Amino acid sequence: MMQLYIANKNYSTWSMRPWLVLHAFNLPFQEILIPFSEEADGGAFKQQMLALHANGKVPLLQHDAVMIWDSLAICEYLAEQFQELPLWPKDPTQRAWARSICAEMHSSFMQLRSLCSMNLQPDYGRHGQRLWSEHAVLRAEVARIEQIWSNRAAVDGFLCGEFSIADAFFTPVVTRLQTFQLPVSDNTQRYMQKILQHPSVVAWITAAQLEQPVRRMEQYPR
Amino acid sequence: MMQLYIANKNYSTWSMRPWLVLHAFNLPFQEILIPFSEEADGGAFKQQMLALHANGKVPLLQHDAVMIWDSLAICEYLAEQFQELPLWPKDPTQRAWARSICAEMHSSFMQLRSLCSMNLQPDYGRHGQRLWSEHAVLRAEVARIEQIWSNRAAVDGFLCGEFSIADAFFTPVVTRLQTFQLPVSDNTQRYMQKILQHPSVVAWITAAQLEQPVRRMEQYPR
Ligand SMILES: N[C@@H](CCC(=O)N[C@@H](CS)C(=O)NCC(=O)O)C(=O)O
Ligand SMILES: N[C@@H](CCC(=O)N[C@@H](CS)C(=O)NCC(=O)O)C(=O)O
Repeated sequence: MMQLYIANKNYSTWSMRPWLVLHAFNLPFQEILIPFSEEADGGAFKQQMLALHANGKVPLLQHDAVMIWDSLAICEYLAEQFQELPLWPKDPTQRAWARSICAEMHSSFMQLRSLCSMNLQPDYGRHGQRLWSEHAVLRAEVARIEQIWSNRAAVDGFLCGEFSIADAFFTPVVTRLQTFQLPVSDNTQRYMQKILQHPSVVAWITAAQLEQPVRRMEQYPR
Repeated sequence: MMQLYIANKNYSTWSMRPWLVLHAFNLPFQEILIPFSEEADGGAFKQQMLALHANGKVPLLQHDAVMIWDSLAICEYLAEQFQELPLWPKDPTQRAWARSICAEMHSSFMQLRSLCSMNLQPDYGRHGQRLWSEHAVLRAEVARIEQIWSNRAAVDGFLCGEFSIADAFFTPVVTRLQTFQLPVSDNTQRYMQKILQHPSVVAWITAAQLEQPVRRMEQYPR
């Protein structure tokens, strides 16, 4: 049995990605949620994660004696372990595209990530409006994301047709666009609705909304 | 024939990674070097890269009609195309570790990356000394890197024994530690020497040292 260490579902975007892959493909796993601490140095959360692994971060996957950390490495590991399932799309060209956009997500969009941290409980529409008018880089990043999504296989489908690692990687982008109500095209809205209706996404968000807020993680007043 | 678009060898760390993999494994490829421009908006470099692909960055791999961007996605693509070769280590547990440390490199060490940009021509020892004393986060990042490297298979070997994608990912870290002469352990020094003697690394650095400086990319006075 695999064990996935994650943090609060309301805040932890990187935890969400491999969790969605495990859940969406019905892979057998146990979820272990280590809640974020209020202390600025990470407190008990950080101590627990460091005791498990020197990287000290979630997500962390334990599979028998093997520890795999970082959302992207975990997803590649799962794709390899369950090769018969389309965790990555089966078509090589689509797979190359899926890997490219996931690696871009993993290393880019810093303004979106820092100005609009994930928070699945409040409606941050008024903060979104202000951030949008003040930050040209944020607007450029969202434009690039919309461009990527507009290249999806079919307008009513997931990025590569069926749900794959690529969609899991972009789900926390969808939730941010939603929470901050950033102005996006109809085409983008359709992809967002598709993601927000996926049963695994619904399950994560439902659990997130029942969590207690952690003050340190609340970026804006509600 | 594959074509790899890269930028100046003296500065472009992300270009270096897949180039080293292609070169070290003798894969057939054509290198196309698009030099960085002096203009702050990226100038002709940016225009050329955007004309090739909407991502607008190097490295970019073209394989027949397929475009793959981002260093990590390119390396995964190559590992899949040349499965018979050990681009990733053949042992599954080592491969999981290699993927974890590459994904960590790809998404972390922001202070090292921003304070100590790659520059293979000058000796930046005095800047390194100052940065080291001023930046606790830089020291913590280097400590984490030393910890990762200390877990390598054998003290006189590469990270997973033979040269693999993992070493390519950490080579621009080695060159930074070298150029800025940051104080590291003997164990770390041995790994650095191993990397700096690899024929593909020597080939890249030799070419880099013959390049004309680009003023905009020179972070510190020489
Ligand atoms: N690149 C990593 C990022 C992991 C990460 O930053 N995780 C956060 C929570 S979402 C964390 O554990 N932060 C605690 C810390 O940095 O101390 C990944 O993709 O998994
Ligand atoms: N995450 C990307 C980073 C690529 C990147 O930032 N490339 C730089 C040069 S090393 C670039 O093309 N910069 C030009 C720009 O951002 O306009 C990767 O791993 O390939």
